Amino acid sequence: NGDDLPKVTQVMVPPPMLPKFDQVENGGPKVILVTFTVEEKKIEVAPNDSIWAFTYNGTVPGPMIVAHQGDFVELTLKNPATNTQMHNIDFHAATGAMGGGDVSLVNPGQEVTFRFRCTRAGVFVYHCAPGGLMVPIHVTAGMNGAIMVLPKDGLKDENGNPVTFDRAYYIAQQDFYFPKDKDGKTENFATVQQSIQALGESIKTLKPTNIVFNGKQGALLGPNALKAKVGEKVLFITSDANNDTRMHLIGGHADLYWPGGKFSNKPFTDFETWEVPGGSAAAVLYRFREPGTYALLDHNLIEAFAYGAVAQVKVEGK
Amino acid sequence: NGDDLPKVTQVMVPPPMLPKFDQVENGGPKVILVTFTVEEKKIEVAPNDSIWAFTYNGTVPGPMIVAHQGDFVELTLKNPATNTQMHNIDFHAATGAMGGGDVSLVNPGQEVTFRFRCTRAGVFVYHCAPGGLMVPIHVTAGMNGAIMVLPKDGLKDENGNPVTFDRAYYIAQQDFYFPKDKDGKTENFATVQQSIQALGESIKTLKPTNIVFNGKQGALLGPNALKAKVGEKVLFITSDANNDTRMHLIGGHADLYWPGGKFSNKPFTDFETWEVPGGSAAAVLYRFREPGTYALLDHNLIEAFAYGAVAQVKVEGK
Amino acid sequence: NGDDLPKVTQVMVPPPMLPKFDQVENGGPKVILVTFTVEEKKIEVAPNDSIWAFTYNGTVPGPMIVAHQGDFVELTLKNPATNTQMHNIDFHAATGAMGGGDVSLVNPGQEVTFRFRCTRAGVFVYHCAPGGLMVPIHVTAGMNGAIMVLPKDGLKDENGNPVTFDRAYYIAQQDFYFPKDKDGKTENFATVQQSIQALGESIKTLKPTNIVFNGKQGALLGPNALKAKVGEKVLFITSDANNDTRMHLIGGHADLYWPGGKFSNKPFTDFETWEVPGGSAAAVLYRFREPGTYALLDHNLIEAFAYGAVAQVKVEGK
Ligand SMILES: [Cu+2]
Ligand SMILES: [Cu+2]
Ligand SMILES: [Cu+2]
Ligand SMILES: [Cu+2]
Ligand SMILES: [Cu+2]
Ligand SMILES: [Cu+2]
Ligand code: NA
Ligand code: NA
Ligand code: NA
Ligand code: NA
Ligand code: NA
Ligand code: NA
Ligand SMILES: [Zn+2]
Ligand SMILES: [Zn+2]
Ligand SMILES: [Zn+2]
Ligand SMILES: [Zn+2]
Ligand SMILES: [Zn+2]
Ligand SMILES: [Zn+2]
Ligand SMILES: [Zn+2]
Ligand SMILES: [Zn+2]
Ligand SMILES: [Zn+2]
Repeated sequence: NGDDLPKVTQVMVPPPMLPKFDQVENGGPKVILVTFTVEEKKIEVAPNDSIWAFTYNGTVPGPMIVAHQGDFVELTLKNPATNTQMHNIDFHAATGAMGGGDVSLVNPGQEVTFRFRCTRAGVFVYHCAPGGLMVPIHVTAGMNGAIMVLPKDGLKDENGNPVTFDRAYYIAQQDFYFPKDKDGKTENFATVQQSIQALGESIKTLKPTNIVFNGKQGALLGPNALKAKVGEKVLFITSDANNDTRMHLIGGHADLYWPGGKFSNKPFTDFETWEVPGGSAAAVLYRFREPGTYALLDHNLIEAFAYGAVAQVKVEGK
Repeated sequence: NGDDLPKVTQVMVPPPMLPKFDQVENGGPKVILVTFTVEEKKIEVAPNDSIWAFTYNGTVPGPMIVAHQGDFVELTLKNPATNTQMHNIDFHAATGAMGGGDVSLVNPGQEVTFRFRCTRAGVFVYHCAPGGLMVPIHVTAGMNGAIMVLPKDGLKDENGNPVTFDRAYYIAQQDFYFPKDKDGKTENFATVQQSIQALGESIKTLKPTNIVFNGKQGALLGPNALKAKVGEKVLFITSDANNDTRMHLIGGHADLYWPGGKFSNKPFTDFETWEVPGGSAAAVLYRFREPGTYALLDHNLIEAFAYGAVAQVKVEGK
Repeated sequence: NGDDLPKVTQVMVPPPMLPKFDQVENGGPKVILVTFTVEEKKIEVAPNDSIWAFTYNGTVPGPMIVAHQGDFVELTLKNPATNTQMHNIDFHAATGAMGGGDVSLVNPGQEVTFRFRCTRAGVFVYHCAPGGLMVPIHVTAGMNGAIMVLPKDGLKDENGNPVTFDRAYYIAQQDFYFPKDKDGKTENFATVQQSIQALGESIKTLKPTNIVFNGKQGALLGPNALKAKVGEKVLFITSDANNDTRMHLIGGHADLYWPGGKFSNKPFTDFETWEVPGGSAAAVLYRFREPGTYALLDHNLIEAFAYGAVAQVKVEGK
């Protein structure tokens, strides 16, 4: 159960950034200590369009965790007394116990610590799953993220040769279902409880009102664009905890795209567009050959340009 | 055409169970005799929410057939005189003649027998396809199922080594489009003909009213949960004859997932979620490591928890 | 940049046909000269149901270009003065400069010529991308197509052996979002500008009003069915520039299906249904074993039979 392994604290950072990590394991397996604090708070998803969001550590998506195959993750989940709802966390990387959901349900004012072993290599979604209709409500209110479990000896290309990357970014597509009044205006709820009640109806449309990357229209545009340099290999980790998406990098390609986001599989090459079925994560490596501005988007172009699922990558050099 | 081969009758059983079969072929190719009787009948899909369903042998989905590559399936399709509609069957496993649809159209009071050769190994959808708008109407009224064609020497893992399984379950996701009255209540039609008329309109919404596993909300929950033991390898065969889905086993993974459900391809490993594009079937093998209750669901969590596409697997042992 | 290479003009033809090309490269790399003229015009998508379409060379989809890996494509894009909108072209096969979108934006009365190198082998979507909401509006008004970049030494099967085909067809699924009046009747706009204004709203439904192959309900049915002979290997190139689809050949299979439509990947075998995520293209090879009429369709059967996404293949011989 990992009790004999060294413990290291991993400091969480807001997406699209990743915490500090080694691409190839440095030393043997470890117990990685991570703390998530649940924040229930209003966030502005589009100009003047806000929702009561449920978040891990205050961001949509929650922070990315990075481990190596064989590591344990020891997660402390804190649900402050100022919150109103029960929350938990289900890791698709974990085995048994509902991915951890069964052992992590905490009331406001409580916290829980549990541990799971990262037995499989790949990128995996995590999300809140407090049961019944609360599952889609919490997940579509923002409460999801991803973990990357790297092989001990790092990534391999399509020929089985080691491949490294110069940067990594984590981009999550989020579908929101804002409750609307009769005039089509977003309801402005005073309390979380009212919001949840209304979301129980609005999600049933199966038609998002907002589809964005990293929690907010424009979160990764203009001054907030992702950055890279010509010649750099960038690992794009893309997830969608609920809806399907089809990611495309305008002007670029997927040099390497791991099927299902799982590193035990030989990566595909040259994809123009890679799908992310709801409830999964994908990993794509691209080496930028040309300077300029690239766009990363959901290639349902309506979802990109009318709903918000578009980011930019600014690439300098020559 | 198989005339010289031994004939064996395969007794159909209701899903999620499979008929008796050998994982590795026992003797040479055979003609497998199967009988399907079409039943048009009201079924309750959710509490107090019923539809005139079209079924093969009375279940949604129809029974799973199991064959080996090189076998023939000789299907007798009976359309009792008490029925009201023409029906037929299109096997995605068959070659030519519209998958058998062209040679199997039967009026009420008729029956037809035809034979096709299972030339390819994999799991394949079958469904009614009586032409035009009747195709989606019959299929979304429940008239679909799957056949599994095993390689003669059984399944192989990602390294090409033989792999066997201890149990197999067949789970089909079904999208229903219940016609509703002005108050949003399900229409209660006295006749099949009225139901079909209304379905011709309601399917055009492209928005299901019910999305369930094995024909009924809760069909595989609680006392009806799937069962397994710790250490067992379970083959999950999942199909969706019309809509797309993304299947996830909470607490588990896909140890082996055959691309497109076709066994001639090397299986992928470690998937968290496997998609099933509408009109296809998937096969996933998982060895349970931990006891407890697992959930198998469509990881559009709204479709799982607000529409009904969720099952449970109860795993005993330690 | 290709200046030293021989130039050859490729004469465009309307889909489903492909221009003349060699399956294995004949001589070294070339610059392929292609001319696209943008036509804004009303097209009838279903009986008495028309839209102001945006097209490359007058067809939906635009013409297929065929190149070999290492070739350059030199595209001249003409926007006649009789048009009303700015247009450009983004090639998913190109690298940098927004796939060419950045260097090809032309006003009515202008033309532009630019060149890109086909560095990767596969089938790739191209489309108009004039910025913002105009991107989905132009693409869902028909302005998209595909290029096939063949490996220099042609296609390879799942064992790495050369494989050739006897015919190739290009089929594009198009989702239209016809603006409707209060009675559900398609709006009949006098001007392109009015149409665009209304499309800016209607696309937001994310629910197509028409889903067709090659621009028109029935474009590939009956007398317009695709043709093949028993024993022939047919390459089906299927694309969807915006929406997801799941393609199925009733009565047939995918003998070879290249993941993501990219020829550097080993093809899968035996698929019953192959998905095409929005913004991508797929290539499937099938050798017809039996004569008769086959149907190629989107296996969301509602989209096929109630919206129009169905084609036929008439196969002669015995
Ligand atoms: Cu929560
Ligand atoms: Cu999940
Ligand atoms: Cu039927
Ligand atoms: Cu079918
Ligand atoms: Cu345009
Ligand atoms: Cu594009
Ligand atoms: Na595991
Ligand atoms: Na969706
Ligand atoms: Na076949
Ligand atoms: Na769907
Ligand atoms: Na390229
Ligand atoms: Na769609
Ligand atoms: Zn580590
Ligand atoms: Zn899981
Ligand atoms: Zn592009
Ligand atoms: Zn998909
Ligand atoms: Zn057999
Ligand atoms: Zn889960
Ligand atoms: Zn896929
Ligand atoms: Zn060439
Ligand atoms: Zn079929």
